[in-house]
Amino acid sequence: MKKLESLFNPKSIAIVGASPKRGKLGNILAENIKISGWKGQIYPVNPKYAKNHAKYFASLQEIKKKVDLVLVAIPATAVSQALLEGATASPKISNFAVISSGFKEAGTEGKKLESELVEISEKYQLNILGPNCLGFINPKQKLNATFTSGNFKPGKVAIVSQSGALAVALLDWTESIGAGLSKVISIGNKSVVDESDVINYLAGDKDTHAIALYLEDIKSGGKFIEALTKLSGRKPVVVIKAGKNKLGQKAISSHTGSLAQDESIIEAAFKKFNLIQADNIPEFQDLIEFLSFTEIPRSGEIIVVTNAGGPGVLASDFIGKSEQLSLLELPTKVKNELKTLLPAGSSVENPIDILGDATPERYQGTLEILSKYLAKYPTLAILTPQSQTDPDRVAQVLVKSKKKIPVLLTSFLGGKKVSKAKLALKEKCISDFSSPEEALAAMEKILLFRNSQSDLKKRTGNSPKELSLKKQSSSIKIFDGALREKRHMLFWNEAEKIFNRYKIPLLKSTSFAALNDPRLKKVKFPCVLKTDDPKIAHRWDKKGVVLNISNFSEFKKAYLRIKKNTKSKNFLIQPMQKPGLELILGMKRDSSFGLVIIIGLGGTYAEIFRDRVIFIPPVTPKEILRKLRDLKMYPILKGYRGEKGYNLQEIANVILRIQQLASENPEISEIDINPFLIYNDGRKGQVLDAKVYLA
Amino acid sequence: MKKLESLFNPKSIAIVGASPKRGKLGNILAENIKISGWKGQIYPVNPKYAKNHAKYFASLQEIKKKVDLVLVAIPATAVSQALLEGATASPKISNFAVISSGFKEAGTEGKKLESELVEISEKYQLNILGPNCLGFINPKQKLNATFTSGNFKPGKVAIVSQSGALAVALLDWTESIGAGLSKVISIGNKSVVDESDVINYLAGDKDTHAIALYLEDIKSGGKFIEALTKLSGRKPVVVIKAGKNKLGQKAISSHTGSLAQDESIIEAAFKKFNLIQADNIPEFQDLIEFLSFTEIPRSGEIIVVTNAGGPGVLASDFIGKSEQLSLLELPTKVKNELKTLLPAGSSVENPIDILGDATPERYQGTLEILSKYLAKYPTLAILTPQSQTDPDRVAQVLVKSKKKIPVLLTSFLGGKKVSKAKLALKEKCISDFSSPEEALAAMEKILLFRNSQSDLKKRTGNSPKELSLKKQSSSIKIFDGALREKRHMLFWNEAEKIFNRYKIPLLKSTSFAALNDPRLKKVKFPCVLKTDDPKIAHRWDKKGVVLNISNFSEFKKAYLRIKKNTKSKNFLIQPMQKPGLELILGMKRDSSFGLVIIIGLGGTYAEIFRDRVIFIPPVTPKEILRKLRDLKMYPILKGYRGEKGYNLQEIANVILRIQQLASENPEISEIDINPFLIYNDGRKGQVLDAKVYLA
Repeated sequence: MKKLESLFNPKSIAIVGASPKRGKLGNILAENIKISGWKGQIYPVNPKYAKNHAKYFASLQEIKKKVDLVLVAIPATAVSQALLEGATASPKISNFAVISSGFKEAGTEGKKLESELVEISEKYQLNILGPNCLGFINPKQKLNATFTSGNFKPGKVAIVSQSGALAVALLDWTESIGAGLSKVISIGNKSVVDESDVINYLAGDKDTHAIALYLEDIKSGGKFIEALTKLSGRKPVVVIKAGKNKLGQKAISSHTGSLAQDESIIEAAFKKFNLIQADNIPEFQDLIEFLSFTEIPRSGEIIVVTNAGGPGVLASDFIGKSEQLSLLELPTKVKNELKTLLPAGSSVENPIDILGDATPERYQGTLEILSKYLAKYPTLAILTPQSQTDPDRVAQVLVKSKKKIPVLLTSFLGGKKVSKAKLALKEKCISDFSSPEEALAAMEKILLFRNSQSDLKKRTGNSPKELSLKKQSSSIKIFDGALREKRHMLFWNEAEKIFNRYKIPLLKSTSFAALNDPRLKKVKFPCVLKTDDPKIAHRWDKKGVVLNISNFSEFKKAYLRIKKNTKSKNFLIQPMQKPGLELILGMKRDSSFGLVIIIGLGGTYAEIFRDRVIFIPPVTPKEILRKLRDLKMYPILKGYRGEKGYNLQEIANVILRIQQLASENPEISEIDINPFLIYNDGRKGQVLDAKVYLA
Repeated sequence: MKKLESLFNPKSIAIVGASPKRGKLGNILAENIKISGWKGQIYPVNPKYAKNHAKYFASLQEIKKKVDLVLVAIPATAVSQALLEGATASPKISNFAVISSGFKEAGTEGKKLESELVEISEKYQLNILGPNCLGFINPKQKLNATFTSGNFKPGKVAIVSQSGALAVALLDWTESIGAGLSKVISIGNKSVVDESDVINYLAGDKDTHAIALYLEDIKSGGKFIEALTKLSGRKPVVVIKAGKNKLGQKAISSHTGSLAQDESIIEAAFKKFNLIQADNIPEFQDLIEFLSFTEIPRSGEIIVVTNAGGPGVLASDFIGKSEQLSLLELPTKVKNELKTLLPAGSSVENPIDILGDATPERYQGTLEILSKYLAKYPTLAILTPQSQTDPDRVAQVLVKSKKKIPVLLTSFLGGKKVSKAKLALKEKCISDFSSPEEALAAMEKILLFRNSQSDLKKRTGNSPKELSLKKQSSSIKIFDGALREKRHMLFWNEAEKIFNRYKIPLLKSTSFAALNDPRLKKVKFPCVLKTDDPKIAHRWDKKGVVLNISNFSEFKKAYLRIKKNTKSKNFLIQPMQKPGLELILGMKRDSSFGLVIIIGLGGTYAEIFRDRVIFIPPVTPKEILRKLRDLKMYPILKGYRGEKGYNLQEIANVILRIQQLASENPEISEIDINPFLIYNDGRKGQVLDAKVYLA
């Protein structure tokens, strides 16, 4: 993939499917480019008009000049031909935005057309945006290369959308609040240029300070991770992900033809790279507005100024439940100055309640005191339209204060009485929110981004000594043997050999088949008997486990019972273990993201509380130790109510070894460990049960 | 408390503190009443103007005519005098709305003034709204008895607010969307008339179809429960509760002087009576708009029509994760008709995607088909402002459809291009939301209300046979004995006597003090040794428990260790129990709500997952069985992954007996049981540990 610089900053554009007829897509595109004020060269291409219209070309090949970008607006079936013409033109044309629909989203025929397009792109090294997209907008270049109209000004945030329709709505909204944008890129079916390519491009785009993504799927998990690794949080990325469950994914596949992905892994990737996740459209808008108008706060200690007690309480409630936010304790000096200014009955504690009869002058006086001493703290000004409060004049006061208080948010509550003031605030780059809670929600997410960035840099935890292993023929033998028997699950003693090499502490067990096995004479009680059957994934559910067997007569009964329940031929004896803390631990290979590792609460409550975290390798000890904190059970791991804590380094080491095992043995598709039993009395943890699956 | 009918529907109003001077509170009140068009009689009262202004009265006593309501707008210190004058006037005046501030919210002096006001109310049986309130609005009577201006039309929803400022903002907002209201009541400090009185009044007010409450505290839990029991869900009640955590409660106490309450109990009361809880101001507004414009849906099977794939997916995501909502499976007939109407590439699966180039006519055709066959299903129409879509004309189409489809919601996304259309929809009583997710969130909460109503009526579960107990002198002796020793916690054998009477299955244990106690010779191993010390609430945390003691030498060691750790003099021996499922169970007396009972997950994870439910008595077996379903651990109780279920009736019976015990023994302030160990193999559950506290 070549750099996308010239695609998004073209000096010359050809429009294939150009038309003098109003309402035709090619005509709308050309009109929008002209109206937006772009200064480059346009080449209309349409064989139908080439004869009678002097400026029209019959094909891309006839232009004979450097064309930075081709906008393609012809029927889907003709698109490949146009690409070929461009690719073989002289000079060669490399950048295309295919606006046309009728591809993957339109069924079998369209899918075929889209594959052709991808093949041509690969053969000729073309950058293709779309197909089935809106195009893009580069406000700084005054270039609107889409079929939607509007008056777009430059700004700090780039919008990248997999839904053209949503981009249209967002554009209309940003225009209405007077916010500019650095780029708007509709990626459509993203057959060639996908979200990862665009992130790579925007990472280096100096006009873009933040990226807002609407995504329905991740084209390639691996490429996405690479792009985000390179970006490494230098610019905040806001993402709204659609298709979070089966119903949403069904809706996606019916309108784009994409396949469902594992949402929990996508979520883990978002978290790993510290993306700011919006839960719905209004929150997405709030975050875009915040990043457009306000700088990233350097503190979560907030000051609230309000003329309304109730909304001040709701703000306090939100702050009270947030881990990122707190109410700034006001210095005595500030409180004293506020007391001099404000009438009796006001509260000079934070939230500062300047009362229902607050005039614009009272807002002004309060904000002047705050800007004198506490300008660096984020400040939220709340207003309700009481009779003595003139919202428009209070807005003017706030606009002046913004010059001194860089993180100043507002929430003017009401309807008609505040609508003009709300727009006036936004026009002067103050983020105004529908409610105090929404202002604080946006602030909280942006602070989480900020604080996690520094968190990522902290060094904690040691790696276990690297095991330098050469590929051993013994492993290959085990895999080959199993596959020859058409087994995709290993027997216990096979898994044991592999685990031992990676020092994963599997409980020493005895495998046997029949009751007359001589080793049974040496069994120590109490013990556990289990089926060891490669067809049985969940021994417990199939009644293939008996615990706490105390003598040989019980053992025989257990053997016969399990044999009856499971029809198994292979069994496993384990010493009964002292109770400890049960964890689940596992790995699998995701079709998009590759290797992922999971750890969490095991035992009875594993599926009830689903308290687990997913790691996307490569994972470092410090990342493991940081992510373990996301578990609800973390207090137990750390030591809780007088109980000793567990050895977190031991947990991290096992995860790192699973990572190494999985990396070095691509034949293994999945490992399920449950439980990994750990202790807080110095004893070492042990894997009591494990399933190893082959691809 | 007399009925509030004449307070909120007065035919004559006196204004104490009336003034001819513009800007004075008394003047604003009179002006607002006149402007609003009220047809009743106004009596201005102010000694200052009585001499020179013909219509002014020097005091309430001089009016000598029937006065239904007095609005009081004079300094706080003078209010009591005005109340007394009214109470002793002839004819007597009973209804007052005290607008004046300077009471409880203003500190010690104000608190005293407010107590005076309450005393006078009690002595003379007065209804007093406020003090420190906005007043109220009765739009049907054309009466604006507040100091905020506006043009209010009659509607279905009553707003009741403990924050005057929030009420002002909500009024401005309802006016801007053209929504009417049945009443707006600002309850202020609610010294006399509180939320429960107002609910009682609105329950019988035929103009009010739904109630929207903003509350910062519950004046009296008992009274609140009584009011809601009487209302019994006949009208939906939406509530936004401020002060949900310490920070919010601190903000409340600084602006109203109220004390913090136990939020988990308030939450339990809201749930018990099926209140619709809004989490923030925009959601509160969405619910008010929904209840104002749209009838309560009778089905959660939704149809989505959209010209934008992305927002359609976000809608599907929301529906996919909701327990109340689903996407209606469209009948083949409907799909076929849609296919005839819609262009290729459209989706006739629900969400119905009518594509980005949808015209108003395409919306119209689609909605006509839906209204012909599926008019009874809730329908959500989504629009983004694409070039071919005229939002204003689509709004007209929807307004027509609303006549046939009673539950029709819309979400027009964008800014300038859709703002006129959004207002046009609301003016014609179509609820339009900022996003599809918000439309669905409102619908979900209202459906939860509707579905829980019918749920409440279902009969399940049997009561245990009522224990008819007479107050026994033995219990009184136990309580007296403990209190004489200044013990507020019972010893185990004291608790045992009381539990036995109520058939609460406490594990048979042996209490002893010294190692030479002869009963120790009879101890069976394995056993458990515990401290039984009324000063130790958490035996485990204080290292006062040793489990699984297998012989007398271990027993002696354990005894000495516990004695050293706890300095205790009393001990308890229990037989070691087979592992089972550990529950916590308890009761306490809340200062506002009285007796509450709690049950949930016990054991190690009790405090980690806090998986519990709170019951507000009187609780019936069916209510217990229904609420147990709210526990995350419910699948385990029901039987899970091949394991047998537990006896839910056994759990319900213990809760009912705790309820009876607590009702008949008001001396007991709190009971903490952890664990109540239950089994799924037929064995009966047992209480292994219990603390009983006296008031």
